[in-house]
Amino acid sequence: MDIKKYMLDVGKLARASAGMMARATTAQKNNALEAIAENIIKHKHALAKANEEDLKAAKEKNLEASLVDRLELTDARIDSMVEGLNQIASLSDPIGTITDLAMRPSGIQVGNMRVPLGVVGIIYESRPNVTADAAALCLKSGNAAILRGGSEALNSNQAIAKCINIGMVEADLPQEAVQVISTTDRAAVGELLTMPEYVDVIVPRGGKGLIERISNEARMPVIKHLDGICHVYIDNDADIDKAVKIALNAKTQRYGTCNTMECLLVAKSVAKEVLDKLAPLYKKAGVEIRGCKESAKLIDGIKIATEEDYGTEYLAPIMSLKIVADVDEAMSHISKYSSQHTEAIVTENYTTSRRFLREVDSSSVMVNASTRFADGFEYGLGAEIGISTDKFHARGPVGLEGLTSKKYIVLGDGHIRT
Amino acid sequence: MDIKKYMLDVGKLARASAGMMARATTAQKNNALEAIAENIIKHKHALAKANEEDLKAAKEKNLEASLVDRLELTDARIDSMVEGLNQIASLSDPIGTITDLAMRPSGIQVGNMRVPLGVVGIIYESRPNVTADAAALCLKSGNAAILRGGSEALNSNQAIAKCINIGMVEADLPQEAVQVISTTDRAAVGELLTMPEYVDVIVPRGGKGLIERISNEARMPVIKHLDGICHVYIDNDADIDKAVKIALNAKTQRYGTCNTMECLLVAKSVAKEVLDKLAPLYKKAGVEIRGCKESAKLIDGIKIATEEDYGTEYLAPIMSLKIVADVDEAMSHISKYSSQHTEAIVTENYTTSRRFLREVDSSSVMVNASTRFADGFEYGLGAEIGISTDKFHARGPVGLEGLTSKKYIVLGDGHIRT
Repeated sequence: MDIKKYMLDVGKLARASAGMMARATTAQKNNALEAIAENIIKHKHALAKANEEDLKAAKEKNLEASLVDRLELTDARIDSMVEGLNQIASLSDPIGTITDLAMRPSGIQVGNMRVPLGVVGIIYESRPNVTADAAALCLKSGNAAILRGGSEALNSNQAIAKCINIGMVEADLPQEAVQVISTTDRAAVGELLTMPEYVDVIVPRGGKGLIERISNEARMPVIKHLDGICHVYIDNDADIDKAVKIALNAKTQRYGTCNTMECLLVAKSVAKEVLDKLAPLYKKAGVEIRGCKESAKLIDGIKIATEEDYGTEYLAPIMSLKIVADVDEAMSHISKYSSQHTEAIVTENYTTSRRFLREVDSSSVMVNASTRFADGFEYGLGAEIGISTDKFHARGPVGLEGLTSKKYIVLGDGHIRT
Repeated sequence: MDIKKYMLDVGKLARASAGMMARATTAQKNNALEAIAENIIKHKHALAKANEEDLKAAKEKNLEASLVDRLELTDARIDSMVEGLNQIASLSDPIGTITDLAMRPSGIQVGNMRVPLGVVGIIYESRPNVTADAAALCLKSGNAAILRGGSEALNSNQAIAKCINIGMVEADLPQEAVQVISTTDRAAVGELLTMPEYVDVIVPRGGKGLIERISNEARMPVIKHLDGICHVYIDNDADIDKAVKIALNAKTQRYGTCNTMECLLVAKSVAKEVLDKLAPLYKKAGVEIRGCKESAKLIDGIKIATEEDYGTEYLAPIMSLKIVADVDEAMSHISKYSSQHTEAIVTENYTTSRRFLREVDSSSVMVNASTRFADGFEYGLGAEIGISTDKFHARGPVGLEGLTSKKYIVLGDGHIRT
């Protein structure tokens, strides 16, 4: 197989169908999403069979149990794919929305119209449900999509692709607007990342290694998400009950997510009171604390945190802890160690809360709420293609709007410039 | 001089001052802009003297007359720099603006706060007034700036830089937040483009060659502006008087600007009537028409347009012309040859106008108005750092907002995720 030629054809087909997708009506796009959902239900057994092949191969290759688990398309996961498709159908269509249409002194009326980006390339690891999710988000936002899933999930992804393509055709949309790469050759990714004439943006979904590699290689913009080293700072003026609740939830509600707290900062004046309550709760939950020397005087038997601990995304029941003088020391610690994902302050002080909101340079900044809320669904985006840790284009949870741009429209009545 | 080390120091100072700029109050930023304007007035003679040196060197090097002209800091140009600074001071501050703050079912309140991008690198050609303009836009949008002007303008740029730095200090802002590169070594540009850890975005201002080179080399996002191959389409349902006025203005009001019409498309049913009126007006203005065969039957003695003509940005009193069947043929011509900068339709037909607005994929799409309006000032942005021909991040004229991003803010009252 000539990978270069194959990918070039994929790119050309995507570009050619992008115009049709941009012009598609809301009804057509929703019909396609619903038809895809129906086809997934209808071909449930074919999906399960394809998935079994992938699972068998994975076990033969002795893949890690966690990888095999993520690969599996259980009934519940298929149902949730279908639910996801229907949910995206129910979101309002961002494309064509006109805002800020205002009269100018010259007499022209100027506004913005929301438009698709064009062709979105998505590179993801083994979860096959991403195929349906990502296709649906691109479709609804009027973009053409090129999807490249993990090689372990090839059969599952192709089976889902078939359902997507049937659904597109049923809704009179070009089936080339969603293409799922059918080769596991890694050269295909290299080609995808180096055809900026056919691909407008890349969204990688996976581990940090994958994302760094893609960002370095891509010749087009990347909506990327690197680490989530999130902090909670309990201020001198915190309500202690809220502080304990939030710090516990931010760490223990789930360990493996990017919005999980990895480091707790506590103001010195409340440290004893807070840690006397929190330490037993963390202990009960099985969380290992690595603290500064000051905190080790307050909590028995904890490890002393190293410099490295403060810059680590544990994604595990481990956390670092530091006692700080005040909000200034907290913010300077955050500015040094945070990955600029999500930071929260617990305080009842008006001025301190306003300063924290304004001065902390992270994609989500919170007052008196758990970092675990940093998520497209919780924020009301309806769905999420990823969480951007960049500032350019989109920052934080990225929903449909992150896959769009705005063009200017000008309405005149024979106006000329003088 | 060790250019690598010099640029690294510049980058580190910029990054270090970006945080202070992000936190600067609106009053501080306006004070700085006004202080810079005052210092430019105060040091007018020093500016003129530095500019004389540049002009003398330029003439000794036999630089083109147009380049020497752009280099000159006349009294009028100095006044307009001062006016520009005061105007940017009068714009409202985008930073800190909170929008869309809405309650979510979980009880948290989620919104967006506008924040600076961080460090903006600007690379421009010989006009020294860009130094003040670009610095002002970065300053007002809370960013740190690294400016690299043309080597011919080194003395003028350094003299302006001095005024900027005094103004910053007078307003208690870090003077390192605006750095004007003091070496003409081209290696400095190469370094600037390859330190993404210190520079968040590059804005090149200059010819197409410069911009292409920069886009290829840059390791960070680029807000770029390539060609302006703009079209006016006169529809079957056009008001002929409006059509003639607009087509004439779009081509002849200025020849060298990116929003000048380069190709006129006319619907067949109105072609004779329109061209009988327009051709003599273009002739009188000294515009050379290169038309399709059909149009050559209607206008005496015009050249036949080649394929190349239709893809050319003349920036001169030359234009191409094509007679088309209808809006569909017009849009397909546009989609093939346009640079996606600005396109206008002249029509009285409601449905045709709506289709053109929706379906034409250009940064500005107009109905019954001259393409010459595509400009930050005409659109009410107050000032313009450039016109983006990309879709990612910003599209079309880019003002202060284009130099910013939005972060999420979350306000809770002890809320945790369950």
